[in-house]
Amino acid sequence: MTYRLILLRHGNSEWNAKNLFTGWVDVDLNAQGVEEAQRGGELLRDRDLLPDVLHTSVLRRAIRTANIALEVADRQWIDVRRSWRLNERHYGGLQGKDKKQTLEELGEEQFMLFRRSYDTPPPAIERGSEYDQAGDPRYAGLPPEILPATECLKDVVERMLPYWYDAIVPDLRDGKTVLVTAHGNSLRALVKHLDNLDEQTVVGLNIPTGIPLYYELDDNFKPVTPGGEYLDPTAAKEAIEAVKNQGR
Amino acid sequence: MTYRLILLRHGNSEWNAKNLFTGWVDVDLNAQGVEEAQRGGELLRDRDLLPDVLHTSVLRRAIRTANIALEVADRQWIDVRRSWRLNERHYGGLQGKDKKQTLEELGEEQFMLFRRSYDTPPPAIERGSEYDQAGDPRYAGLPPEILPATECLKDVVERMLPYWYDAIVPDLRDGKTVLVTAHGNSLRALVKHLDNLDEQTVVGLNIPTGIPLYYELDDNFKPVTPGGEYLDPTAAKEAIEAVKNQGR
Repeated sequence: MTYRLILLRHGNSEWNAKNLFTGWVDVDLNAQGVEEAQRGGELLRDRDLLPDVLHTSVLRRAIRTANIALEVADRQWIDVRRSWRLNERHYGGLQGKDKKQTLEELGEEQFMLFRRSYDTPPPAIERGSEYDQAGDPRYAGLPPEILPATECLKDVVERMLPYWYDAIVPDLRDGKTVLVTAHGNSLRALVKHLDNLDEQTVVGLNIPTGIPLYYELDDNFKPVTPGGEYLDPTAAKEAIEAVKNQGR
Repeated sequence: MTYRLILLRHGNSEWNAKNLFTGWVDVDLNAQGVEEAQRGGELLRDRDLLPDVLHTSVLRRAIRTANIALEVADRQWIDVRRSWRLNERHYGGLQGKDKKQTLEELGEEQFMLFRRSYDTPPPAIERGSEYDQAGDPRYAGLPPEILPATECLKDVVERMLPYWYDAIVPDLRDGKTVLVTAHGNSLRALVKHLDNLDEQTVVGLNIPTGIPLYYELDDNFKPVTPGGEYLDPTAAKEAIEAVKNQGR
């Protein structure tokens, strides 16, 4: 018996184009992101990898990506579960800030530490400031001590894993094909767990947007093939190379 | 303590324009239907009647209506539950047929009996025929004896009510504002129950598309104001008059 898990990172959003730190700010997909979601749905459909249940974050860009992809694959009718535990990393006081300007203000070393270290979170967001989520009704069930004010990738791993064990694994165990539509860092966190990546490897991991990543899992809910399989491996490779070259 | 229930009938679909019997055939919204859904979301937002949980049928036109309306109202992140028990009435062997042509074939009396009687279903659909739903994966959990082959409104009332009691009432009791996005006949069935309508009254009841119908419910989950309240009463009145005049 093996289990079927599909990860899908949401496509381009309005703030990607503007080059702003997003985190938990609830921006929408842009036109390119909509196209990426459609393409994701086509890949699922053409490969006949049809989800029985959807897990998403509570952020609009992941929800719309899932809705669009599932409509294309004619699976818009499946069960849906959502959790803040699948949200993007909370970017703290950097949320809403311009990336280029922040780089100039902080210097490259500090900037890269906040972006790519495993365990150094950015400064906390000021509660009640413009891009803070305190007071957002979707988080009304979270007491203040658990609502993040900033997060490093380590924090994301810690808050995501309970959802993996409590919500996703039970659906897999039921024999369902599970689609998880989420974000760069919440998916990184999940892949770190699945593929048993060390901290250094996971911060360098890039998961392309809009290309379903399929994992067949064994009895212990671990990958049969480490790293899984992108449903469009050529596009995935190109996207990963492109991100690498950006850093040069 | 009162409870908050909002009913929303999906907007115009591709087969409305083509004048075909639809029933359980999974046609999409057309452009007008998308606009109606957006307008429905605006009415919820402007009235600050914000759902905490969504109940939909498993049909695409209701699911898209809900997704669009909730995106407009910034409530796309709420919990979702779906059931075939909220589906449109199964139209049996008439599914996929042209309404005008069927009227000519059957004669007006028989035609109106199938369309508007409470307890006369159209002939059963032939299993495995083009517009039959047997084999559709979304109904894979339904043994053949419960998968409808045709329905009259009475059948819809009987299959919808268990969902009302088992799924919707518990959410209301939890204090949630509940949005039910469904179809002409499944909503008729629910309104019949809520407003205690007799059979003759309910077959003449027209629920306009895309205009949220708000019910405040008392301790017994019965309307404080019989008939509820359309969030755009003028548009609702006009739509109901227009349907009446079609019949003349």
